[in-house]
Amino acid sequence: MYIGVDVGGTNLVAGVVNKKGEILAKAKCPTVIDKGADKVIDDIKTIIAQACKNAGLDEKEIISIGIGIPGPIDNSTGEVIFAANLPFNRTPLTAIIKEKWDVGVHLLNDADAAAFGEAYAGSAKGCMHMVLITLGTGLGGGIVIDGKISTGFNNIGGEIGHVIVEHNGRACNCGRKGCWEKYASASGLIALTKEQMERDTESAMWRIAPELDKVDGRTAFLAAREGDASGKAVVALYLEYLASGLSNVINIFQPEVVCIGGGVCNEGDALLLPIKEMVAKTTFRHPTRNTEIRIASLGNDAGIIGAALAGV
Amino acid sequence: MYIGVDVGGTNLVAGVVNKKGEILAKAKCPTVIDKGADKVIDDIKTIIAQACKNAGLDEKEIISIGIGIPGPIDNSTGEVIFAANLPFNRTPLTAIIKEKWDVGVHLLNDADAAAFGEAYAGSAKGCMHMVLITLGTGLGGGIVIDGKISTGFNNIGGEIGHVIVEHNGRACNCGRKGCWEKYASASGLIALTKEQMERDTESAMWRIAPELDKVDGRTAFLAAREGDASGKAVVALYLEYLASGLSNVINIFQPEVVCIGGGVCNEGDALLLPIKEMVAKTTFRHPTRNTEIRIASLGNDAGIIGAALAGV
Repeated sequence: MYIGVDVGGTNLVAGVVNKKGEILAKAKCPTVIDKGADKVIDDIKTIIAQACKNAGLDEKEIISIGIGIPGPIDNSTGEVIFAANLPFNRTPLTAIIKEKWDVGVHLLNDADAAAFGEAYAGSAKGCMHMVLITLGTGLGGGIVIDGKISTGFNNIGGEIGHVIVEHNGRACNCGRKGCWEKYASASGLIALTKEQMERDTESAMWRIAPELDKVDGRTAFLAAREGDASGKAVVALYLEYLASGLSNVINIFQPEVVCIGGGVCNEGDALLLPIKEMVAKTTFRHPTRNTEIRIASLGNDAGIIGAALAGV
Repeated sequence: MYIGVDVGGTNLVAGVVNKKGEILAKAKCPTVIDKGADKVIDDIKTIIAQACKNAGLDEKEIISIGIGIPGPIDNSTGEVIFAANLPFNRTPLTAIIKEKWDVGVHLLNDADAAAFGEAYAGSAKGCMHMVLITLGTGLGGGIVIDGKISTGFNNIGGEIGHVIVEHNGRACNCGRKGCWEKYASASGLIALTKEQMERDTESAMWRIAPELDKVDGRTAFLAAREGDASGKAVVALYLEYLASGLSNVINIFQPEVVCIGGGVCNEGDALLLPIKEMVAKTTFRHPTRNTEIRIASLGNDAGIIGAALAGV
């Protein structure tokens, strides 16, 4: 059996995964940030052991362990280079895990792990060329080419959210101005919503979210469904930016499938149908074979499944 | 020996290439557009035979033939899907060439062929991950990942010039608004130059190009070197767009090398040094291993070498 670990800023989750990409059992615990890397690593070991116990698996039957990290990793040295919300800095995680379990250990960026999970067992199952775009606080990207995760020669590629779509646009945490992430992530949608609410104090969005702090990714979509003009305008603009960036991804990669994930995707067809239409008009088209856009199906499990199986 | 053919809108060129990526002999002829696909294909056969003769090569020693096409191809059927400036439309080029020479025949997009040529024998020699950006009338892209040309599941990917860098910006022939090609190609530079000349009728650029029709990719660079403020402004803006798009490419791919080619690159360090500086500030950086930007070294030979060896 294969072990996949999702190291998040809030929780650590380990799963026992079979070759079909099914999770047989999981174990999780909160991520303790303020006690250093050793504590986090000890907790990773504990939940791996616990997940095995939950699956009724003898730890000797572990074939390999994959660990998804929210930051850049270096598989040539087995180090986590750093991770924005975790106490890792050139941390030799592979070697430490191998001390306990002498099996193949591979590190992955969490977005890449999720992409591989969707390609292996999710809504892009069986695709050799796919891209996963996750619309969350940020906009994460994971790229699978020829059945393998593609992260460049130094393992830090795939930062599709940090591509400029608006020259000298909104300032991004990465230092650039106008990154796609600032417009098409859930945070980008919230920013667009707040701006429009400030322009239109009569909008139905103010009833749905009486204070700007209460605005979330659903506010504009809810108002739009009620027929509110400002809500519709926000949704239209958001979808325009989302579709534009997806067209960029397709013109570059022409993947068989682009999966989009994250809470915004709960809007379902209200999101998917207009995007498909816009993307079809703004991408290079093949006479018979064109990219499909699908909503990711595995949620948070994608990262566990992908981490478990990407190195196999 | 390997045969590489560069099918251009102006000329057809065939080369005999050895495994080192050296061209032993070439043959060329003008491309006759108005007599249909058969004439072009006959001419391709003629120059292949002529190149063999020039190299003193018995045609029986041909191992494989690669043909670079300025348009989308489908290697699963061996067809040229179409080519903007050539009389090809679902043309079964592979089968026709194989009738004469029963060897492996593969079709490539010309930008991809050039990228592979630079990766095999040019300024990205030996790189398994590289991207070639060609700054010409358009802005072409070719991507090499894990030592192979990467064009997506339907062979039409790599359209890096058709990524939006300016939301609702300049109208592009592809139907989108704000494509990188409209700002960073040689044509984009010429458009920026003309616009600034119209704003500043005192600019030294008017002496260098007394009419707008005489403007070319060097006009602004020449004026800038003289200290002309408008010339400097054009060069600065052009380099900003070029660097911004290169940073996009690097954030996505993190290739070992990005090669840039095309006439604009004759500016050398006046182009390369400021771009390197801007890109270093606007890309995700690895502690020790980062993308190098280099000027492509093979010129038009890149496409012949790449076509000859990409399918090997």
